[in-house]
Amino acid sequence: MGIFVVFEGGEASGKTTQCEALRQRACSAGLAVTSVREPGGTSAAEGIRQLLKRGDREPLSELFLFSAARASLMASVVRPALERGDTVISDRYIYSTLAYQGYGRGIDLETVRRVNAIATQGLAPELVVLLDLAPECGLQRLPRPEVNEQLGLDLSPERERPAGPPDRIEQDSREFHRRVREGYVDLARSDPERWLVLDASAPAAKLSDLVWDRVSELIAP
Amino acid sequence: MGIFVVFEGGEASGKTTQCEALRQRACSAGLAVTSVREPGGTSAAEGIRQLLKRGDREPLSELFLFSAARASLMASVVRPALERGDTVISDRYIYSTLAYQGYGRGIDLETVRRVNAIATQGLAPELVVLLDLAPECGLQRLPRPEVNEQLGLDLSPERERPAGPPDRIEQDSREFHRRVREGYVDLARSDPERWLVLDASAPAAKLSDLVWDRVSELIAP
Repeated sequence: MGIFVVFEGGEASGKTTQCEALRQRACSAGLAVTSVREPGGTSAAEGIRQLLKRGDREPLSELFLFSAARASLMASVVRPALERGDTVISDRYIYSTLAYQGYGRGIDLETVRRVNAIATQGLAPELVVLLDLAPECGLQRLPRPEVNEQLGLDLSPERERPAGPPDRIEQDSREFHRRVREGYVDLARSDPERWLVLDASAPAAKLSDLVWDRVSELIAP
Repeated sequence: MGIFVVFEGGEASGKTTQCEALRQRACSAGLAVTSVREPGGTSAAEGIRQLLKRGDREPLSELFLFSAARASLMASVVRPALERGDTVISDRYIYSTLAYQGYGRGIDLETVRRVNAIATQGLAPELVVLLDLAPECGLQRLPRPEVNEQLGLDLSPERERPAGPPDRIEQDSREFHRRVREGYVDLARSDPERWLVLDASAPAAKLSDLVWDRVSELIAP
C-alpha cells in the first residue's frame, strides 16, 4: 500500500500550494503520486461539488453530500491508487467534515465520525498536515500567485484561488471559522502521531521543507 | 402531530397514482395534506435528483446522495408539515433505500439502517403501503393515463411516467429488481403492523379504497 497524506486547514491557509509542492517533490524523488482534492475528483463528485457551492444550509444534508463525494473518490481513485503503491495527496479529507459540519455547524461529532467511517470504510491517512491559521488572516488573504512562483510551482489557473467574491462557506461568520479552527486543533491534539501542525503564516518554502521532512521519514522509515 | 403515510414499491407499480388518489380523498375529507416524492421536494433535493439520474454506480455514494436529499426534505418540509398537523404522503422513503441500496446493491442492511436513522432522526411513518408487483410486470408497464382518468385524477404532466427510454435504475437487471422486491416483502413481514401489502396488479380504484380504509382508521381510531 502507498502512503496517504492529507492537508487540512481553514480557507486560504495555503493547502493547494502545499499539496502541489509536495507532489512535485515526491515526483522528483521518483515516487508515483496521485493528487486529489475534496470534494471532487470523479465526475459524480464534481457534480456534488457544484451542488454544494449553490448552497444548501441543512447541516445533515451537507454532511451526506460531502460523504457521497468522498465515497465516490475513495472507491474510484484513492483506494486503487494506494493499492498500486502510489503516494496519495489529498486537499482535505474526513477531518474537514469533522471541523466544518461537526465543530462548525454543530452536528454531534459521533454522528460525523460514524458517517465518515462508512464513507471511507475506515481508511485513515498516515499523515495529516494542519496548516493552522487564525481565521481573520485566512479570510483576508488574497490570491498570491507570487508564492507559487517562488516555489517554482505551475498551478493551473483553475486551482488558483479566484479573485471573485468569496463562496458560500467563505461568507460564513467569523464565529463559525473560529470554531472550525478550534476543531482542527482539538483533532490534532487527540492524535499527535498522525498530525503535523504547522503555522500557515510561515513562508511557503519553509512549510514545504517541513512537510517533506516528515513524508521522507514515512517513505524510508 | 399529523399522520405520515409512505408508498413503496418497484418501478411502475402505481405509486404516483395512489399517492395522488389518497391526497384527493384526504383533502375531500377535510384534512390538510402535504405530498412529497423522494428524492426531491426542496431545491437542494431536486438538484440531487438530477445528479442521481446522471448515474453514479458507486453504491455508497448513491446511499449518501439519497440520504442528503432526504435530510433536506425532512428538515424543510416533512417535519414542519407533521408538526402543524398535516397528513404527509410520501412517494418513497427509507424503505426504498433499504430495498434498492441494501437488498439490491448489496450494502449491508445495518449500514443502510444507520444512515437512514441519521437522515430522518428516527422518524417512522404510521403506515407504509407496499404496491407489490412482479418486476417483469412493472418493467413492461407503459404510461397509463387512462387509469388516472378513471380515478378522476389530474396528474400534472411531469408526474406522469415519461414515455421515453427508461432511466438508469429502470435499466438495471431483472435480478436486481427481483432482489428489490424480495427486500420489500422481507421488510413488510418484519413489521406487519406498519405495512399494508397490496397486489399492485389489482384495479387502481380498488387499491385506493383499501388504502383509504386503512388511513381512515389511523385518522379516527
